[in-house]
Amino acid sequence: MKLRDDRRALHEIPELDRSLPETFAYLENALAGLNCRLFSPAAGSLCAWLDFGKEDAIAFRADCDGLPIAEKTGKPYASRHPGRMHACGHDGHMAIVLELARRLGEKRELPHNVLLVFQSGEETTGGARDICETGVFREYRVQAIFGLHLWPGLETGVIASRPRELMARSSEVNVDICGKSAHIAKAAEGVDALEAGTEFYRKAMEMERKLPSNIYRLLKFGKFESGTVRNALSAHTRMEGSLRAFQDEIFEDLVDGLRKIGRELEAKYGCAVDIHFSDGYPAVMNPENLAQRVGRICPFRLLESPSMTAEDFSWYQKTLPGMFFFLGLGDVPALHTDTFDFDEGILKAGADFFETLAERFQ
Amino acid sequence: MKLRDDRRALHEIPELDRSLPETFAYLENALAGLNCRLFSPAAGSLCAWLDFGKEDAIAFRADCDGLPIAEKTGKPYASRHPGRMHACGHDGHMAIVLELARRLGEKRELPHNVLLVFQSGEETTGGARDICETGVFREYRVQAIFGLHLWPGLETGVIASRPRELMARSSEVNVDICGKSAHIAKAAEGVDALEAGTEFYRKAMEMERKLPSNIYRLLKFGKFESGTVRNALSAHTRMEGSLRAFQDEIFEDLVDGLRKIGRELEAKYGCAVDIHFSDGYPAVMNPENLAQRVGRICPFRLLESPSMTAEDFSWYQKTLPGMFFFLGLGDVPALHTDTFDFDEGILKAGADFFETLAERFQ
Repeated sequence: MKLRDDRRALHEIPELDRSLPETFAYLENALAGLNCRLFSPAAGSLCAWLDFGKEDAIAFRADCDGLPIAEKTGKPYASRHPGRMHACGHDGHMAIVLELARRLGEKRELPHNVLLVFQSGEETTGGARDICETGVFREYRVQAIFGLHLWPGLETGVIASRPRELMARSSEVNVDICGKSAHIAKAAEGVDALEAGTEFYRKAMEMERKLPSNIYRLLKFGKFESGTVRNALSAHTRMEGSLRAFQDEIFEDLVDGLRKIGRELEAKYGCAVDIHFSDGYPAVMNPENLAQRVGRICPFRLLESPSMTAEDFSWYQKTLPGMFFFLGLGDVPALHTDTFDFDEGILKAGADFFETLAERFQ
Repeated sequence: MKLRDDRRALHEIPELDRSLPETFAYLENALAGLNCRLFSPAAGSLCAWLDFGKEDAIAFRADCDGLPIAEKTGKPYASRHPGRMHACGHDGHMAIVLELARRLGEKRELPHNVLLVFQSGEETTGGARDICETGVFREYRVQAIFGLHLWPGLETGVIASRPRELMARSSEVNVDICGKSAHIAKAAEGVDALEAGTEFYRKAMEMERKLPSNIYRLLKFGKFESGTVRNALSAHTRMEGSLRAFQDEIFEDLVDGLRKIGRELEAKYGCAVDIHFSDGYPAVMNPENLAQRVGRICPFRLLESPSMTAEDFSWYQKTLPGMFFFLGLGDVPALHTDTFDFDEGILKAGADFFETLAERFQ
C-alpha cells in the first residue's frame, strides 16, 4: 500500500522550517514517473502541474515540515533525525497528495487542470505566504485550493469542516511592565510592577469577557513572572499569552484594547508598558459559497464550532478561494506530542475525498 | 579610644545565629577585669551583673550576631570571616554596652543594680525570647530594659524613639495556589491558577487599603510566579510577601482576611490555596509611661512614624517594661548591605545616653 509506505518513509526523515532537502528529494522521486510537470515557485516549495488542457485549475496543498520534538513512539518507522519528528501529521498530508497525484496522473479527462502544492514552513513563519506572493495561482488560473489536516479526536476517517470560521488568527502576546524597585517599607519611593501587572491581567480578561459569547476568540496568559524577592517591590512583570480570533476586526479590537489598558496603567502608575504581538497567521475562514459548492458534491461533516488553533493555509485563502478540512484520526495522542501516531489506513479517506473533488468540483 | 577599638575588633570576627564563640570570648575578656559578675542565663547569651546593693535593677541589651553577607567595604578592619559580616551594626551595639560596663564599673553609687545582656540570634530566630523564658529578669528584679539600634538616615549622633509603635510585628507570607493545567483553547478543562492568583493579590491589596490610614501596617508581595508556557493554563501560582503590623489584633485581622480570601477563591475556582505565615517577632512597642519617664531625664528626638522593620527586642517588652531607641548614623549605606559602615565617633552618644539612664532613671 503506497499511502502507508510513503507516510512511513517520510516519517523517518522529518526536517524543519524552510529547508527540507531529503523530504523534497523523496517527493520529486515519487512524482518523477507520473504524468505531471514539477517546478518550484518559491524557495522551499515544490509544485506538480497536471495539465488536462482546461481553461482553469484547482489546487491541493500538502505541508511538509516537521517539528523540533524528540520522538518517543518507539515505532520501527520512528524519526531517524534526532530531536525532529513529524508530530503534526504533515507526513500523512504529503502521502495523501502523492496518492492523489498517482490517481489523477492516470486519468484522461478532468474538469480542471490540477496544481499540487507542497510547502515548507507551516510550523514556523508561513511558507504559504511566499508561494502566494509569486503569483503562481494567477499564472495557472487556479480558481480554488483545498487542504486538510489530520485531526485527533475526530471520528476515524471522517472528513469535517464548516463554512466561515474554521481555525483562528493567532498571535503571541508578550507584555513587559517596568516599574522601580524599592524596599516594601518604602513603597512610595518605587513603582510596583506587580500591582500594575495584576491590574493589566484583570482588565485584559474583563475586556475579553465583555465580548458577546457568540464571537469566537481567545485571550489567555499562561505565564506571569514578577519580582525577585519578597521584601522589595517588583521592578518588572513579564506576561506571556496568546491572542486568537477569526474576524480581523475582533482581533484588532482586542489588540487596541490591550494597548489602551497599557496606556491607562502607564498614566496611573508611572510604569512603562510594552506589548508585543507576534506576526501570526490569519484565520482559516472557509468562504460560504465555496463550502456550499463542495458540500453538494463531497458531503462533509459539519463542525459545530471552530478550532482555536492556527494554520498558514489561511494565506492561500487571502489570495484565492480556498477550503480546509479535518480528517479524523479517532482516539490518538494530541498533535505536537512526542507519542503522536496514527493508522495509515485512515489516509485513503483523504485521498478519496480529494480525488472526488478533482473529478466533480465545478 | 576603646569604643572604636572594640567595634573594629568585633567587626573583624562576625559570627552567625546562636553560635558566637569568638565574639563571646572577646566580650568575656573585655569584661573580665571590671567590677561585674559574668554568667550565661541561656545558651548563646552572656550577662554581666553590676551589683550596687539596690532593691532592683535596670538592664541594657546588645545583640551580637552578624549576617551571611560577603563584606565589600574594603576597610582594614573588614570581616576576616568569609561570607559573614556585621552589616547590621551589632558590633557597634556591643561596643556601646562594653563602654557602658567600663563606665558603670567605676561608679560607687547608682540608683539601681545593672544587668548587661549580650544576646545571639537577633537576625534569625529571636535569641531574646530564650533569655526571657529563663526568668532571669524576675530573678534579678529588673524593672526596665533598654536597647538601641544604629540607624542610617537619622541625623548623626541623634537618639530618637517614640512612644507606642516603633518597629513592626513581621511575618513572611507565602501563598501557593494549585490549579489544573489545560491547553488555553480548552480552558474549561482546567483550573487557572494565574486567574485565581491575580484575584487573590488584588483582593489582599484591597483589604489592606480598607484599613484606616492612621493604623500602621504593611502587606506587600514582592514576588509572583505563575505558569510555565504561554499556551497552557497555569497549574501553580506562588506569591511571596511580607505582613507587618504593630497591634496584634490588626495583624491577626489581616491574617484572617488573607485566609478568608483563600477560602473564597477555593470555592470560586476549585483551586487549592495554601497560605503560610512564618513565626516572626512581635512589634517593638514602647510603653507610653516608660517613654515619659525616660523623656524627663534623657530627652530623645520624637520620631513622627514607626519603622516597618522588625527587631526581637520586642520579646523583652513582652516580659518587662522596655524601651528601644535609634542612634543616628547620618548618610551611610543601608543596613544589611555589603558596604554598610559608619564612623565610630557616633558610638559615644549611645554610651552617654545609656550612662545617663543608668544614673538617673527612677
